[in-house]
Amino acid sequence: MGGRFIVTYRVFATTKPEALARAEDVALEQTVEIPRHVVPAGYVEDVVLGRVEAVAREEGGTWAARISYAPDAVGEELPQLLNVIFGNSSIQKGLKVTALDLGPVMSARFRGPRFGAQGLRHLTGRKIGGFVCPVIKPQGSSSADLAALAYATARAGADIVKEDHGLANQPAAPFRDRIPMLAEAVARANAERRMAGDSTRALYFPNIGGHADQIREDAYFAKAAGADGILMIPGIQGFDAINRLARDPGFGLPIMAHPAHLGPYVLSPDTGYSHGMMLGTLMRLAGADISVFPNNGGRFGFSLAECQDIVSACSTPDGPGLPILPSPGGGMSIERLPDMLRLYGPDCVYLLGGSLLRFGDRIGDAIGAMRAALDQNET
Amino acid sequence: MGGRFIVTYRVFATTKPEALARAEDVALEQTVEIPRHVVPAGYVEDVVLGRVEAVAREEGGTWAARISYAPDAVGEELPQLLNVIFGNSSIQKGLKVTALDLGPVMSARFRGPRFGAQGLRHLTGRKIGGFVCPVIKPQGSSSADLAALAYATARAGADIVKEDHGLANQPAAPFRDRIPMLAEAVARANAERRMAGDSTRALYFPNIGGHADQIREDAYFAKAAGADGILMIPGIQGFDAINRLARDPGFGLPIMAHPAHLGPYVLSPDTGYSHGMMLGTLMRLAGADISVFPNNGGRFGFSLAECQDIVSACSTPDGPGLPILPSPGGGMSIERLPDMLRLYGPDCVYLLGGSLLRFGDRIGDAIGAMRAALDQNET
Repeated sequence: MGGRFIVTYRVFATTKPEALARAEDVALEQTVEIPRHVVPAGYVEDVVLGRVEAVAREEGGTWAARISYAPDAVGEELPQLLNVIFGNSSIQKGLKVTALDLGPVMSARFRGPRFGAQGLRHLTGRKIGGFVCPVIKPQGSSSADLAALAYATARAGADIVKEDHGLANQPAAPFRDRIPMLAEAVARANAERRMAGDSTRALYFPNIGGHADQIREDAYFAKAAGADGILMIPGIQGFDAINRLARDPGFGLPIMAHPAHLGPYVLSPDTGYSHGMMLGTLMRLAGADISVFPNNGGRFGFSLAECQDIVSACSTPDGPGLPILPSPGGGMSIERLPDMLRLYGPDCVYLLGGSLLRFGDRIGDAIGAMRAALDQNET
Repeated sequence: MGGRFIVTYRVFATTKPEALARAEDVALEQTVEIPRHVVPAGYVEDVVLGRVEAVAREEGGTWAARISYAPDAVGEELPQLLNVIFGNSSIQKGLKVTALDLGPVMSARFRGPRFGAQGLRHLTGRKIGGFVCPVIKPQGSSSADLAALAYATARAGADIVKEDHGLANQPAAPFRDRIPMLAEAVARANAERRMAGDSTRALYFPNIGGHADQIREDAYFAKAAGADGILMIPGIQGFDAINRLARDPGFGLPIMAHPAHLGPYVLSPDTGYSHGMMLGTLMRLAGADISVFPNNGGRFGFSLAECQDIVSACSTPDGPGLPILPSPGGGMSIERLPDMLRLYGPDCVYLLGGSLLRFGDRIGDAIGAMRAALDQNET
């Protein structure tokens, strides 16, 4: 294979010859993008052109086409890797990307998450059990109100205090005012937990929601202000925005990826990416340590099998890079946690957002109840 | 309305009450993302919360829900505007964004393209008639070979010499070697055209395909090397990457947007964006001056109505910002140009890529034939 990487496409075709022809078209489209008979002989034809390695019948009557590509068709940058995987072919119906095998050369170029699931255990001190993650919201609240919520949930035992992905740089709580206040609030809660003999600590993950060309500056600002990680939205900022920070040793904080604006890639049966590929594999490829996704049974309608596909892609030892933590959310409640625990197990970040707010001043009790629900099966 | 902006969603629902309930859910989801009964009274409820303005039956049995949002829910940054338009709701089936009315406040914050269709006429000197745009490819070719192609097509009368979106920073033609060579080749052709009395000139648009956090640096490098514009891929780099350069007076070159990796947003009938919204309105919002899309009848399968929707969204005087040039491509040939001209008219960038290569050393003749085909109806 000479270090080529392999993308598996689900091809919607009725016969094998049709599926094969379709796969050959994809191999052209994703690399040289010219008719087959004008592909220059030599290097372009022998190396750069995509190569159909296998086409096999799948359950359900579709075909799995494995196409290999040369690292030379990409170079060192993630944007062009995504472009080769599914740039133009994303505009053709009846094709869905289901798997990626980076191979040795690309695995060395794209090393994935810096921390992964184990790294998050180390950073939080949460040696066993699920991670409790309140979501700080709603937007429109003042920085002080959000900080009070962050303090209360962190003090009550949250493992990760995540900002809502809708907190960007709005007038009610501008980024550069808000982040230091919430970081201080979480740090104060952590100091009190430490004094009380707690060996775990809460990590504060602000949302990086500003201009595209200021992501690095904003992330470094958040780090300097005391953030322990960041939340990013690859569906809006692009996957490489995550990758650049994940591979930046000067930054060195964990990254949580939010699925906003990515829905159409997974919702259509015959285009886009499979759920696991997009919300597991691509997140790991980009370097996210935690992947947020909508839980089955919430207000988003992912099936159980789709959620399991995501968890499996997050946790497989096959890569890309380290296994990461899946993070189901979207209309969850404390009452559903025992069920979720049976489904997702302990290596999971359990999100709770809007439904926490109904507890008002007793939000700490709600966090305690989450912890208890998650520890139920550990004892 | 107090300066609010309005997003129109196509809602798939059987009854009006169902459509209304769905619209109310979207208004919550896209702003506060908490249950309705815990939305804080005052500013958050009165201003920040999305507001359902109207729900009306559409042809075909769907519903058009107009939801208004406060500029305060966004701030000044495009990523959060996209997040409010369709962040989380993109993950729910039965919703498609079909229109955007920025209103006065957001129109002042997001001014759209710097040049638009008229600006491109000025820059090229092409006062009437369609624009001829060869695509320089394939990847894997040396910079010298690509430069020879750029020279030949520019010399023969091309208006825009566009790099293939698959030319990134690969070893065969690294970005910083390639761009100066092609810029020189096009400049040389332009000098010869000027000497020969031609009042038009070719603009060279290299593809910016490197790391996300080096886009500005790469774009400035291209400009310094002699590029006349740039090609960008918002489906991979994010729409704000375009916006930041479009609004940067120090950069000041036109931008062509390529639809790679955006397919799933338009291909599914019941999620994503309408064709015109994504490949017209959002491109203008971001600040692209030219929007590439797959022509009807090529290898991508867009219908005539979908292509017309894109052209209409590119050219309507209603904004966002200036009208821009649509640019159909994807498996076109010179033989089809007269048909395309009848469909798209003169305010259009006519792409020709792979099929040019079969002309080999006679590629200049092919460009001449394109020009003749486009001028046929002008005489």
